[in-house]
Amino acid sequence: MLDPLWCLTHVNGMKQKFSFQLHATSGKARRGTISTPRGDIRTPAFMPVGTAATVKAMLPGSVRETGADILLGNTYHLMLRPTAERIDHLGGLHKFMNWERPILTDSGGFQVMSLASLRKMSEDGVMFKSHIDGSKHHLTPERSIEIQKLLGSDIVMCFDECPALPAGLDEIARSMRMSMRWAERSRVAFGDRPGHALFGIQQGGLDQGLRAESALALKNIGFEGYAVGGLAVGEGQKAMFDVLDFAPDQLPLDKPRYLMGVGKPDDIVGAVARGIDMMDCVLPSRSGRTGQVFTRRGVVNIKNARHQDDPRPLDEFCSCPACSNYSRAYLHHVFRSHEIISSMLLTWHNLHYFQELMRLMRDAIDIDSFADFQARFYAERALGDVEPL
Amino acid sequence: MLDPLWCLTHVNGMKQKFSFQLHATSGKARRGTISTPRGDIRTPAFMPVGTAATVKAMLPGSVRETGADILLGNTYHLMLRPTAERIDHLGGLHKFMNWERPILTDSGGFQVMSLASLRKMSEDGVMFKSHIDGSKHHLTPERSIEIQKLLGSDIVMCFDECPALPAGLDEIARSMRMSMRWAERSRVAFGDRPGHALFGIQQGGLDQGLRAESALALKNIGFEGYAVGGLAVGEGQKAMFDVLDFAPDQLPLDKPRYLMGVGKPDDIVGAVARGIDMMDCVLPSRSGRTGQVFTRRGVVNIKNARHQDDPRPLDEFCSCPACSNYSRAYLHHVFRSHEIISSMLLTWHNLHYFQELMRLMRDAIDIDSFADFQARFYAERALGDVEPL
Repeated sequence: MLDPLWCLTHVNGMKQKFSFQLHATSGKARRGTISTPRGDIRTPAFMPVGTAATVKAMLPGSVRETGADILLGNTYHLMLRPTAERIDHLGGLHKFMNWERPILTDSGGFQVMSLASLRKMSEDGVMFKSHIDGSKHHLTPERSIEIQKLLGSDIVMCFDECPALPAGLDEIARSMRMSMRWAERSRVAFGDRPGHALFGIQQGGLDQGLRAESALALKNIGFEGYAVGGLAVGEGQKAMFDVLDFAPDQLPLDKPRYLMGVGKPDDIVGAVARGIDMMDCVLPSRSGRTGQVFTRRGVVNIKNARHQDDPRPLDEFCSCPACSNYSRAYLHHVFRSHEIISSMLLTWHNLHYFQELMRLMRDAIDIDSFADFQARFYAERALGDVEPL
Repeated sequence: MLDPLWCLTHVNGMKQKFSFQLHATSGKARRGTISTPRGDIRTPAFMPVGTAATVKAMLPGSVRETGADILLGNTYHLMLRPTAERIDHLGGLHKFMNWERPILTDSGGFQVMSLASLRKMSEDGVMFKSHIDGSKHHLTPERSIEIQKLLGSDIVMCFDECPALPAGLDEIARSMRMSMRWAERSRVAFGDRPGHALFGIQQGGLDQGLRAESALALKNIGFEGYAVGGLAVGEGQKAMFDVLDFAPDQLPLDKPRYLMGVGKPDDIVGAVARGIDMMDCVLPSRSGRTGQVFTRRGVVNIKNARHQDDPRPLDEFCSCPACSNYSRAYLHHVFRSHEIISSMLLTWHNLHYFQELMRLMRDAIDIDSFADFQARFYAERALGDVEPL
């Protein structure tokens, strides 16, 4: 039998390219499609995080059912376990984790900073010790790109340094400029890979001038897409939105713009309103495991005793399996009983909610009614959760 | 829309009864169907255990996909959390856990003995403290039946005492006779419930005479089915098979025979060969969570380093999602990484394997070739796992 993916990549020559089409705008919000040999990505897109070659507590088919077009994989985790070379020998990350659609991988830099110990940074790259077994590793722009190639990533991210905020302007500038030199090394290391993309990452903290300098440096190198990096690192929503009021405009109009590590539903809506096309966050899956549930009417904490006799679904308008088949009382019971099905159902619900949010935004942009969507979004949240019975 | 279950129970009057038909035998092995208003149970049947209103790490639809016709629920766990009264108010256990097909509940007695603390046994019943919150509870035959009714169980088990082996013959006899008095009290408490069944439980340890006395007492009371109790409590396979060489023959031919808490694949084959129709065990789900996998060629420990580069499935002939979509290398990786998908996939595989085993036995009995099936079963196991690459 012909492999469908083979057909897609080899028979349909049109699909071999990586490309981005912008279909519509509504205010600054953008509606588009990223085309890749492994399938289209409808933007604005939310990418669930599959850290260690799995979106935690979900089968890949279920992730797809929620509406996800693309997953994010973490270079840092995968290089340590099971290792990029092993995944390569086994046929690449898509085959390994049974996800045939596009995968974006981060560069590993961010998690070296947040998870590894004994980090030593230099112009060349960063030395660190694995948080799993203490083994020593050296990550450079060249090695990060090599790992992402071994994984078979469709969208590869430049290796950069993401300084923790707050930091002095000098430090932000120094770090950004090194990241721009690393972006150039990443571009060279990536080479020519039709159907695959390399994204540059804008840095510069909260400073408009440094952000502009960074954007210019990236545009001069030239990338298939551009990320707004260095946000969602503790600066708060207002500061983030202030940056997003100018940062996306500094990037090319005709390429996808990716806001890394964002976020909460209202972060996402605010980012899309400011011209962001792609986002990723562990929030829906991590919250699913801790009993925090996202609904149109805000956050529900399923462990709260108010749910223990409640026959109603989490959200009467939600069509996910948790809402279609189970009461709040059941979800409360299995969460309290530490049953795995609790993580499975609540993660599914949260991912479904996030993808529905993206779909509603895409639909609103298509008919140039994003402002109306935003008004409804905030009005529904203002209602708060349904009253206890 | 008409509820399919309503149609099943109300339109088709034929289906309202609980009944058992024996279709074929092969040696002592029996092929039959238990009919209930909630659907048929093909026997020999293996019942996955849904302890706390969930088969751990599985969605009910997935359990059904493995071929399960019926689940087992644990009275002890459910009475403590979320409580039988709560489940009743929420519409019963089937609705609560989203499993519309038959459910058998145990009486709670066995787990009071294995899990609760400060037990105090009397002719009336047993006082104990919850292992969850230390709360005090009193379980009697009447209360056990009441709880199982509140849960909405299709097959209710008599409340009995299951003495730990080894025990002296006097103690076994005393305990068995009290269980027979409790069986009578259970029968009275159960009353007349069309479409539902009450099963008696044979006791008597390893002693043929006591087993005969117990069987006679149960037959005199009269039940819709009969369990062989008091086995799989540490006596070993040989001792269990020795009892199964005579115990099922002491029970009525025309009623289902249920061996409680069994077991490993070869226990199951040996039990079916000796005339058992139903079994349950936590083994496939519990082993799934600890990385122990059952295949035609025996047990595979996925945590073993030999699997880390192995691109082959657990079992090339298995059609479960774990074997269809993933390599041993992936399953090894997610097990080692403590990822929830490991429990999900390995549990699914194990339940699939157990249900396939039942299907193969049913097919073999249908064509009176159970001895051939047994020969193939042991020959395949003797091969051992595939050689490392």
